[in-house]
Amino acid sequence: MSAGSLLGELDGVGRDRARGGFSRHAFDPAERDLREWFIERALRLGLDVETDRNGNMWAWWGAQGPDAVVTGSHLDSVPGGGAFDGPLGVVSALDAVESLQAKGFTPAKPFAVVVFAEEEGGRFGVPCLGSRLLTGSIDADKARGLRDPDGVTLAEAASQAGLAPEWFGADPDLLGKIGRFVELHVEQGRGLIDLGSPVAVGSTVIAHGRWRFSFGGQGNHAGATLMGDRHDPMLPAASVIAAARRAASATGDGRATVGRLVPTPGGTNVIASTVDLWLDARVPGSGRTPALVAEITEAAREAAEAEGCSVTVSEESYSDTVTFDAALRDELKTRLGDVPELPTGAGHDAGILAAYVPSGMLYVRNPTGISHAPEEFAEAADVDHGVRALADVLEHLST
Amino acid sequence: MSAGSLLGELDGVGRDRARGGFSRHAFDPAERDLREWFIERALRLGLDVETDRNGNMWAWWGAQGPDAVVTGSHLDSVPGGGAFDGPLGVVSALDAVESLQAKGFTPAKPFAVVVFAEEEGGRFGVPCLGSRLLTGSIDADKARGLRDPDGVTLAEAASQAGLAPEWFGADPDLLGKIGRFVELHVEQGRGLIDLGSPVAVGSTVIAHGRWRFSFGGQGNHAGATLMGDRHDPMLPAASVIAAARRAASATGDGRATVGRLVPTPGGTNVIASTVDLWLDARVPGSGRTPALVAEITEAAREAAEAEGCSVTVSEESYSDTVTFDAALRDELKTRLGDVPELPTGAGHDAGILAAYVPSGMLYVRNPTGISHAPEEFAEAADVDHGVRALADVLEHLST
Repeated sequence: MSAGSLLGELDGVGRDRARGGFSRHAFDPAERDLREWFIERALRLGLDVETDRNGNMWAWWGAQGPDAVVTGSHLDSVPGGGAFDGPLGVVSALDAVESLQAKGFTPAKPFAVVVFAEEEGGRFGVPCLGSRLLTGSIDADKARGLRDPDGVTLAEAASQAGLAPEWFGADPDLLGKIGRFVELHVEQGRGLIDLGSPVAVGSTVIAHGRWRFSFGGQGNHAGATLMGDRHDPMLPAASVIAAARRAASATGDGRATVGRLVPTPGGTNVIASTVDLWLDARVPGSGRTPALVAEITEAAREAAEAEGCSVTVSEESYSDTVTFDAALRDELKTRLGDVPELPTGAGHDAGILAAYVPSGMLYVRNPTGISHAPEEFAEAADVDHGVRALADVLEHLST
Repeated sequence: MSAGSLLGELDGVGRDRARGGFSRHAFDPAERDLREWFIERALRLGLDVETDRNGNMWAWWGAQGPDAVVTGSHLDSVPGGGAFDGPLGVVSALDAVESLQAKGFTPAKPFAVVVFAEEEGGRFGVPCLGSRLLTGSIDADKARGLRDPDGVTLAEAASQAGLAPEWFGADPDLLGKIGRFVELHVEQGRGLIDLGSPVAVGSTVIAHGRWRFSFGGQGNHAGATLMGDRHDPMLPAASVIAAARRAASATGDGRATVGRLVPTPGGTNVIASTVDLWLDARVPGSGRTPALVAEITEAAREAAEAEGCSVTVSEESYSDTVTFDAALRDELKTRLGDVPELPTGAGHDAGILAAYVPSGMLYVRNPTGISHAPEEFAEAADVDHGVRALADVLEHLST
């Protein structure tokens, strides 16, 4: 099965009729269907599939062992996301294995295809949750207590999915088996359009994180409460949206986004009592992201004080700048010939693993330049190009 | 049963653990429990209960007929609302009937206690939906097609509740039976605190309405999309919040509120593709509310254009200033003695009925001055005072 055909098999799973695109989140019915699909597809290739203690799935080609060559990505999506972000890396890995098998290749090193859980943080708020747990870069107790928007904890959702969340946490034995990790991913910006190339090798991941701003005011009647008597948390929330735009633009190359905002109780004729919003901030370089967040936080405090509202700001995740392993990058580029390097503003499991094992990435051109939205795309020829590049690299690394 | 005891019976119905307070919306399980409770309580008083073609409930004391004296209010709430807004008028009506019965009074005129459906518009967006349908002040087709946040239409929800939505619409026979309508309601501001009175007679309802602002932009990746490449609908949405505050404050006595705002898809690491927000606007006097909305709409259009976003603004409901029937007000004040008159910024079913039949209101003091929130309150002594005033008025009107 080609990567394109495999992607087609997923086309009906997790369609989001309200938002458009796909909504596939950790342990929801759509994501569980995707897990079953992956297991079946991997078994057909003769791979041995197991789910690790953190809910990541591993399909081993041959015996497990140290110095393994590992490839893969994730199957979950953002709410209303595109078809390629995550799944492209998984289907390309399966297609690459099949094409290597078809030509009679057998890896000399241990070899696995991995699917990481909850890469987007779309349900429990922390991105790259599966790889963070595997590496121990998030505390297992903190992770177990994360709640989805309905108040369900990760531990509860994982239990319902048949996992044993009491075993969540760093897995040095499994991590220690990874010799090198290569993740293929659809590009999420316009880098490859501008470069005129179907494929690139990843160079860096911008420092990035998520912060929750919670404003508290006084819920009240929208008609009976005079403007001067209000403590309306929507006002400082609006100020944060404006401040994020202003401050990020001033950095020149930083990005700040408020894409999720929840007023409570959320009635039309009700002044909100609380507003929660989430700031996604990313600035290239060291220390600049925290500085940007500090500036936006200061604006939030001033606006909250002016409205007689409270505000608390909490960091939900933060990842410093990642530079992918230089030796692996050189190997990928040498093997692939005339392929550009590309930095990215998007986070990836490879960025988490990079602090522990040599990791690298391949990006496939996205002709819309749009991602995390239904318009995300990759041309069939570019998908094939990506699979061939990945197979080539995996053959080289595992020989 | 005293009004206070009756309210206590409702204390466990529709508790909203997430928002605090109560969430009771048209045809949801909590509201259906409240309907059953009302029918049972009315039957115990010997009243004949029927649900009209629009889902309003009528409990008749004696035979139906013209020139009826009607009292009542509603049982639904805003999301996360208080215990008194609506139910106080219903339990006070039941208590008043019981106390009149206890003293051997029998009304000489037809007499009914009414519970109007979906007064808050908390589920389907249009306030006073039951009284608007009864009077024909909303088109029945438009009403049937109203959708809740999950996309369920009013027609579907009503059908599931056992109603026949094809019969929705103006009911001149039933409306024609109402001689005078008196609604008792908890006060929703600080008017009676300032006046030092437990009860007031309603004078006017400020013109008020709801407008939906829908901004369309380009959903995209929060990390990979440069600030200069964005068309983020959260920016003009934030501008509307600020413009509503600024413009309403400038009127001196107007009110404008954004209490509900929904970004789609609503992911933390996703630039929204659309943002819907609802503006609640109310300014005393004729024509001033539309002028305020026009000013805010202009700010929305400018902000949307600056961001390269689209915007559509649609009126979901609008009610002009209501002045309650002068003769009925005089009768109420004469009967109740030294009772102040009070204008209100809150809409009521009595405000809808006022255009068709002589209607009036009694307000009961709210010591917090807060409404549409869990802090909404009325002291037991004031509740009793309200019931006595209502019974007194009803006896007088129906003699």
